[in-house]
Amino acid sequence: MRAIDENTITDAALDQMSATPNPRLKQIMEAAVRHLHAFAREVDLTPDEWLDGIKFLTSVGQACTAYRQEFVLLSDTLGLSSLVNSLHDHRATESSTKSSLLGPFYRQDSPTFELGQSIAVKAHGLEIGIYGRITDATGKGIPHASIEVWQPDEDGDYDLQKHDPKEMDLRGRFLTDNDGRYHLRSIRPLGYMIPMDGPVGDMIRAQRRHGYRPAHIHFLIGASGYREVVTALYISGDEHIESDTVFGVTESLVCEVRDKDSASPFKELPSIRFDFTLAAVKGAGSGRVGADPSQIIKKTQAAAD
Amino acid sequence: MRAIDENTITDAALDQMSATPNPRLKQIMEAAVRHLHAFAREVDLTPDEWLDGIKFLTSVGQACTAYRQEFVLLSDTLGLSSLVNSLHDHRATESSTKSSLLGPFYRQDSPTFELGQSIAVKAHGLEIGIYGRITDATGKGIPHASIEVWQPDEDGDYDLQKHDPKEMDLRGRFLTDNDGRYHLRSIRPLGYMIPMDGPVGDMIRAQRRHGYRPAHIHFLIGASGYREVVTALYISGDEHIESDTVFGVTESLVCEVRDKDSASPFKELPSIRFDFTLAAVKGAGSGRVGADPSQIIKKTQAAAD
Repeated sequence: MRAIDENTITDAALDQMSATPNPRLKQIMEAAVRHLHAFAREVDLTPDEWLDGIKFLTSVGQACTAYRQEFVLLSDTLGLSSLVNSLHDHRATESSTKSSLLGPFYRQDSPTFELGQSIAVKAHGLEIGIYGRITDATGKGIPHASIEVWQPDEDGDYDLQKHDPKEMDLRGRFLTDNDGRYHLRSIRPLGYMIPMDGPVGDMIRAQRRHGYRPAHIHFLIGASGYREVVTALYISGDEHIESDTVFGVTESLVCEVRDKDSASPFKELPSIRFDFTLAAVKGAGSGRVGADPSQIIKKTQAAAD
Repeated sequence: MRAIDENTITDAALDQMSATPNPRLKQIMEAAVRHLHAFAREVDLTPDEWLDGIKFLTSVGQACTAYRQEFVLLSDTLGLSSLVNSLHDHRATESSTKSSLLGPFYRQDSPTFELGQSIAVKAHGLEIGIYGRITDATGKGIPHASIEVWQPDEDGDYDLQKHDPKEMDLRGRFLTDNDGRYHLRSIRPLGYMIPMDGPVGDMIRAQRRHGYRPAHIHFLIGASGYREVVTALYISGDEHIESDTVFGVTESLVCEVRDKDSASPFKELPSIRFDFTLAAVKGAGSGRVGADPSQIIKKTQAAAD
């Protein structure tokens, strides 16, 4: 008969999981148990604190709906999503543009535009141009690469937050030309506060964090034979650029909006120039950290049925 | 501008939390972030696996109701609840009976009985006697100590699972006599399988675990000036006593049902003798790992309102 105490319990738990047939699940769950137990031992977690943790995680789960994914928000605000992105980038054999968070506002089936068109159909604001190239790791342009763009408006709101969720705005898909070049028009976005009316908002306030994301534009870029890149460009000068609540900003993704850019195809507009690099395909996996909450909830409900 | 990668992200996250005014919250969240990140780095977590984790935790949260606490079940089956109990026991200055899990079937306001009465009002089964003493760390009996007892029936079901949840059975409260002695009657309980129809059940199956708890009887023991003890006695000989799915069993809590026990106040009945030891009070905190799910859900909903 085993005597269970705060040290032997970890081996007892690992023993019970040792027959897990899926080797990767076994590895992940064993590591999860070891780190979870090490955490509880390190802080000498009390029963009352444990109960607070159970209540917090329960409320995070219960705040999830078809339009909101509070567990993704928790992962984002704890830096886990950014970490998983970095690990994903690190796994590529060739260098590529760094990943950033997909975020909760990505939508499938956004409209397709011709190069040069504007994704701002309903929204008003300071018009800007965005242009550059999609290249492989050697700098060679990738023709007909797909670029999906989405962003908030000049008030920091996405279409989903602003009007009938069925109407799309400030999002669209473009294809590069034969040289891998792209150019499109939009409006200058504003940064925004993450949803603060749920348990993650309570956590952010208890930690005296401001809850803001700096102004940014999302990109999902793919081409046959290349690893898909989910990323975002962060606009230099935003007051929260050094303190993004979800840790999406990294140095190489900060861009300038230049008033005078003689190289821009939009002579009359302030422009952002950014060249994206794709790595050749190696292995499977979408590399999208973050996801459409309605998809997660649907899969969850299907699994529970 | 900071470059965020899989190593610098941890310090970036800790920096943002560094102004947390509550020092204990700061300590716990910093440790949680460090261990969470170390886990992701150790297993080199992929975006698809991250998404599976988000879906799993979401489904655990959504499986919680006023009658079910799936996050407590997850904590139990990962050994965290047992670990927190052990840490709690370790914190006492005097030795006491070891803790075990409160479990999801504890109910407040169970009926009060006189010493010698049976808690089996409706349930049938093999009648047994339970007797012993409640003492302090020096072995001195504690008069008028409160003993709450609850247990499943001979099929492994609690009253909450068997009939109208408003009717209580196989649970009750007793007070020790002037010498700290107690004796009561009940029926021999059967072990049971944890609820397997939720996401935690899916995990248990994926890990090829049996999901059973060995036969046991719960106790919550308190007396003025002493630290409350939440524990359980596990009946020797149960086939799952070495492999409790929730890691509640420890050597010192295993008891025998003896057919012939000349010291038993119940000469005609198979009897369990167990003496419980309480430690003098030191600090606050209930020490109850596990909790009435309806209480957790109520508090969660109140917080969300």
